[in-house]
Amino acid sequence: MNAMQRLNQIVKERGPLVAGLDPDIRKILSMVEASQGKSDFPDDIMDEVNILESQMWDFCEEYLEALQSEVGIVKINSAFFEACGMEYVYWEIAKFAKELGYFVIGDLKRADIGNTSEQYANAFLCDESPFDAITINPYFGTDGIKPFLDLAKETGKGVFVLVKTSNTSSAEIQDLVLEDGKTVYMKVAELVSQWGNYTNPDGDEDYNLVGAVVGATHPEQAKELRKIMPNTFFLVPGYGAQGATAKDIVVNFDKEGGGAVVNSSRGIMMAYNSKRWKDQFTIEKWSEAAKSEAKRAQSELSAEVEAYLEE
Amino acid sequence: MNAMQRLNQIVKERGPLVAGLDPDIRKILSMVEASQGKSDFPDDIMDEVNILESQMWDFCEEYLEALQSEVGIVKINSAFFEACGMEYVYWEIAKFAKELGYFVIGDLKRADIGNTSEQYANAFLCDESPFDAITINPYFGTDGIKPFLDLAKETGKGVFVLVKTSNTSSAEIQDLVLEDGKTVYMKVAELVSQWGNYTNPDGDEDYNLVGAVVGATHPEQAKELRKIMPNTFFLVPGYGAQGATAKDIVVNFDKEGGGAVVNSSRGIMMAYNSKRWKDQFTIEKWSEAAKSEAKRAQSELSAEVEAYLEE
Repeated sequence: MNAMQRLNQIVKERGPLVAGLDPDIRKILSMVEASQGKSDFPDDIMDEVNILESQMWDFCEEYLEALQSEVGIVKINSAFFEACGMEYVYWEIAKFAKELGYFVIGDLKRADIGNTSEQYANAFLCDESPFDAITINPYFGTDGIKPFLDLAKETGKGVFVLVKTSNTSSAEIQDLVLEDGKTVYMKVAELVSQWGNYTNPDGDEDYNLVGAVVGATHPEQAKELRKIMPNTFFLVPGYGAQGATAKDIVVNFDKEGGGAVVNSSRGIMMAYNSKRWKDQFTIEKWSEAAKSEAKRAQSELSAEVEAYLEE
Repeated sequence: MNAMQRLNQIVKERGPLVAGLDPDIRKILSMVEASQGKSDFPDDIMDEVNILESQMWDFCEEYLEALQSEVGIVKINSAFFEACGMEYVYWEIAKFAKELGYFVIGDLKRADIGNTSEQYANAFLCDESPFDAITINPYFGTDGIKPFLDLAKETGKGVFVLVKTSNTSSAEIQDLVLEDGKTVYMKVAELVSQWGNYTNPDGDEDYNLVGAVVGATHPEQAKELRKIMPNTFFLVPGYGAQGATAKDIVVNFDKEGGGAVVNSSRGIMMAYNSKRWKDQFTIEKWSEAAKSEAKRAQSELSAEVEAYLEE
């Protein structure tokens, strides 16, 4: 079973929620300080590096273990590890998530010309990689994407291509209207569909190995995109902290309630500090708050998708 | 003096050539094998990792030292380090290049929504970072770019935004024609120009801190882009191995022969194996071949730019 088929099965058995892991080391440190009192850093810089690494590791481990019973999919953002020189920890955390049984999405948004994309593809989509799928950027066009597709076909792993991102300024380039009346994101969707067919030449799979990132903050556009990309799995960010509601995201799903997963990162990680949960959880219990929020979000999403299918 | 002003000074004093460093670990290993006989790998995987790391390090060090007398600017591509788990070496090599006096461009092509871009910006554009400038991808629009601009203003470091990339498939998205007759890359150029003005609000600098990546393989489009972005520094890849000639790239420069730098990666690194140099250099002398090719390319580019200015 290829990555997207496995993902679809998880959606149907456990629900569509993706627990985003964007561990901001500065926030983690202030959480540690707030719950344990001021951290006492040693003078030695290397000891400090080790302490930071172990706090990063502890946070991610606690997060992944807490959510294991509620969520089947995790998306881990490389920027937050790269920002503090912990790329090594990124890989280790991804391996740990894989061992816990998660479907692991590497949120990388990488892109380059072909010979460079080949390097990224070899690293992240090889058999030994802990990642089941990764996010990539389409701006270079087909020859920059092809190394990912070729390796995906070989290993059965997947990619999610940015089509319409969840942020406000995404309109500046992605919504530009072309001479034929289509928008840039619609053209990118057509390319994504072609790239997907390349990974599934016999057309015998419900979902091919090339998924699309479609922001939850744009329900009208998601509806159009679902039509342009019928065999494309959607990764939908923007639910929770970025403002989209469960009602906004239902249009991303297919008629069987599959074909899409919905990410929440800050909404889950920082739940202890949210209006909904802050009376119930102190900062020391942040991972219990995350678990409660994940459980709530998972059932809210499932209920909305079900209601949408019955309409 | 900000990063782009320093870059312009280097172009005028030493020439516009950027030595690209894209160290493919598999190629390095086969070069080592070919010149020293088959490498004898130990059984222990950690020893093997250390040997790979030291071969990567040796190659990069030899490259940077060999070219020091010929070239003032180096562009180091993160993918080739990330592909083999050597992100740590990436930073160390960048620091080493900085110590040798190079203007160091981090070729990253990163992009994300604002809160994530902030992480990348903090890592790569802070005062302590060895990078003078980095490459980024515009697909998210202004709010994804702003964290880079804000930090650039603070530290005087620069960014180069992908506008028109050197690869063939760049046309698929970047050349799409909009309803007003402009292309996507022209709209991106307008954004780049706005972003640049934001970093130089008084308009008192020849070149602002937001540069553009404009492929050497598209001279006609480069001419248009020079007009849209008069105060934008151009980073021009595609010269050498990707097929563009020195004549193709002259249109990227300003009337004083500044405002652009021209990258060659494989053309320099693999010069020992090129038609031009292979009779003169064996594989053991690859870095001498690289030096000869850099010297030749530097003077070819300078001569063409000079001839263009006299036209």
